[in-house]
Amino acid sequence: MQNEIRRDYVLERYAIIAGERARRPTDFTVQPSERDSSTSCPFCPGNEQMTPPANLVYLPKDGGIAKEKDSNEFRHKEWTIRCFPNLYPALSPNIGESTLQDSKLNIKSSAYGFHEIVVESPDHDEHPHIARLKQLGFVFDACLDLSKEFYSSENIEYVQIFRNHRKEAGASLSHAHTQIIATPVIPPTIKEEFDKSKEYHEEEKECIYCRIIADERRGSRLIYEGESFIVIAPWASVHPFEFWILPKHHESDLFNVTDLEKLDFTKTLRVSLGGLARILNDPPYNYGFHSSPKSNRENEFYHWHLEVYPKLSTWAGFELSTGIYLNVTPPEIAAENLRESLKRELGSLLV
Amino acid sequence: MQNEIRRDYVLERYAIIAGERARRPTDFTVQPSERDSSTSCPFCPGNEQMTPPANLVYLPKDGGIAKEKDSNEFRHKEWTIRCFPNLYPALSPNIGESTLQDSKLNIKSSAYGFHEIVVESPDHDEHPHIARLKQLGFVFDACLDLSKEFYSSENIEYVQIFRNHRKEAGASLSHAHTQIIATPVIPPTIKEEFDKSKEYHEEEKECIYCRIIADERRGSRLIYEGESFIVIAPWASVHPFEFWILPKHHESDLFNVTDLEKLDFTKTLRVSLGGLARILNDPPYNYGFHSSPKSNRENEFYHWHLEVYPKLSTWAGFELSTGIYLNVTPPEIAAENLRESLKRELGSLLV
Repeated sequence: MQNEIRRDYVLERYAIIAGERARRPTDFTVQPSERDSSTSCPFCPGNEQMTPPANLVYLPKDGGIAKEKDSNEFRHKEWTIRCFPNLYPALSPNIGESTLQDSKLNIKSSAYGFHEIVVESPDHDEHPHIARLKQLGFVFDACLDLSKEFYSSENIEYVQIFRNHRKEAGASLSHAHTQIIATPVIPPTIKEEFDKSKEYHEEEKECIYCRIIADERRGSRLIYEGESFIVIAPWASVHPFEFWILPKHHESDLFNVTDLEKLDFTKTLRVSLGGLARILNDPPYNYGFHSSPKSNRENEFYHWHLEVYPKLSTWAGFELSTGIYLNVTPPEIAAENLRESLKRELGSLLV
Repeated sequence: MQNEIRRDYVLERYAIIAGERARRPTDFTVQPSERDSSTSCPFCPGNEQMTPPANLVYLPKDGGIAKEKDSNEFRHKEWTIRCFPNLYPALSPNIGESTLQDSKLNIKSSAYGFHEIVVESPDHDEHPHIARLKQLGFVFDACLDLSKEFYSSENIEYVQIFRNHRKEAGASLSHAHTQIIATPVIPPTIKEEFDKSKEYHEEEKECIYCRIIADERRGSRLIYEGESFIVIAPWASVHPFEFWILPKHHESDLFNVTDLEKLDFTKTLRVSLGGLARILNDPPYNYGFHSSPKSNRENEFYHWHLEVYPKLSTWAGFELSTGIYLNVTPPEIAAENLRESLKRELGSLLV
């Protein structure tokens, strides 16, 4: 395949897909991951005093889950999931929301918002690619619980749920955890996706993501199709082995997911990340949920999904200056390799 | 200072400036840089056969410079600057320019363009922060020579000149070099800057960058002001210690720079990067020139400049999902430190 310049389905963004020197999984060298010791890990059981009090704890109760909070004096032990404000928050609720202006071109607002840590398991190493499905379900529930709470604050416009895996992808602690940042502005990337999807819907009378799903499920970029979700390597991937998980049923808002979909989502996430880890030596990655912003959470044109970005290359001067991204692994090759790996992962899940 | 959310002067982009835990130069750990051996370096003198034939060589001649080309059989030796196509080009002139469409949402064009290496010096280690000013002038000239040539190709819309310093910032070889990629599309970032500047000019009857210069030259984000250029830490910096070099005289197009300006630019670049290297242990960085695209190279509203991004942090799940960037060093603190360091650098230049 010759190199190609591809435009993203939705965003005004280009990828140069390097087909001529396409890099396969064995062309990447991923170092084994570093692990902090669990005796000093502030996220490990027994070290609850090292973090702020939890504002949400899942505790095992009667074969189910009880939801509790810590107080300043008391920290719950024996938890299943534990969530607390980041000790060094990017945004904080203790600041009044306000937009200020230094001058016409110096526009700022106070850093109002929420920045939360969701500890995914008492087990330091229970990362999603090897996690129990039931545990992944709890993680998902806790993220939704907190997000709903943050959205109920008057000035929050968007809640970003994301995960950094390994130090190379920005995780400062190796204990399995997710983060949530709730912002008083609609983030530019989400806004552009939202606006462009709306435009497309006005012209074509269909959801652009539903169209992508219909197109890609038949083609060479399909990685996996389950009951409720499909996994694809997007057409203009900007990261090697990038993949997206999309619900097949149209749903603009992550928070309307049904119990059955939730179950299928955890399985899809588990095998996708398991498949990735299998062929690339548990590489660093970032992922983020994309969902409609608060002001228009239910609509016909936006479609929630998860984007997963393995960190196998560096964005350098060209990418940072232009917004054009050189990707050394064509999505068709990524899909082919991930497809095979996922099959094996699914097999091992059934054993 | 409390944390703040700041909007970029021009782009629809936000930075969360972490004032509360602001990180100063000594808070960053930069490892000493790795260096490839010069015996096997394809950019070192004597190894010219390891690269494609040069399409531009500067040779010393009668106290000045002669400009030559290699042929397939013959490679010039004793060069001052040597430029040749990247052996593994992202874009290549040997492909016909065309826009193709797989389907409505799968838009691509062939990877037509140019991808060039500019070897900045026969000396493996003559990086801009320690380079001779005269040599930096040759580098600049060679970049302009090649850019003009690329712009004369019918289907080139933009020529991006950029530099990656050290492996951590994407430089695969440590010999001092710049790269040029000429693209058949206007890059999204440049397009957004261009469009927004034009809008601003229509409303305000002034160039937005001239306004930025007028505002910032009096303030706490000024790093250096010379005869023709100023250096500032931009209001909504998305990288710690990010700085921009802007010509004080309005000029949309990099290619109209006068000889006097060129001289002052090399000095400004030298002391800025020298000042950065001095306080941060020669950190990895990327830089890129921003200039008007081909279709409108001379205009009243866009203003060429150089943006320098030290690589001291990792963009993680939050940044990559949202387009909001957490910056742990407020530009006012970056400016304060760089200002002092530049003074010392200027002093040492005069000795």
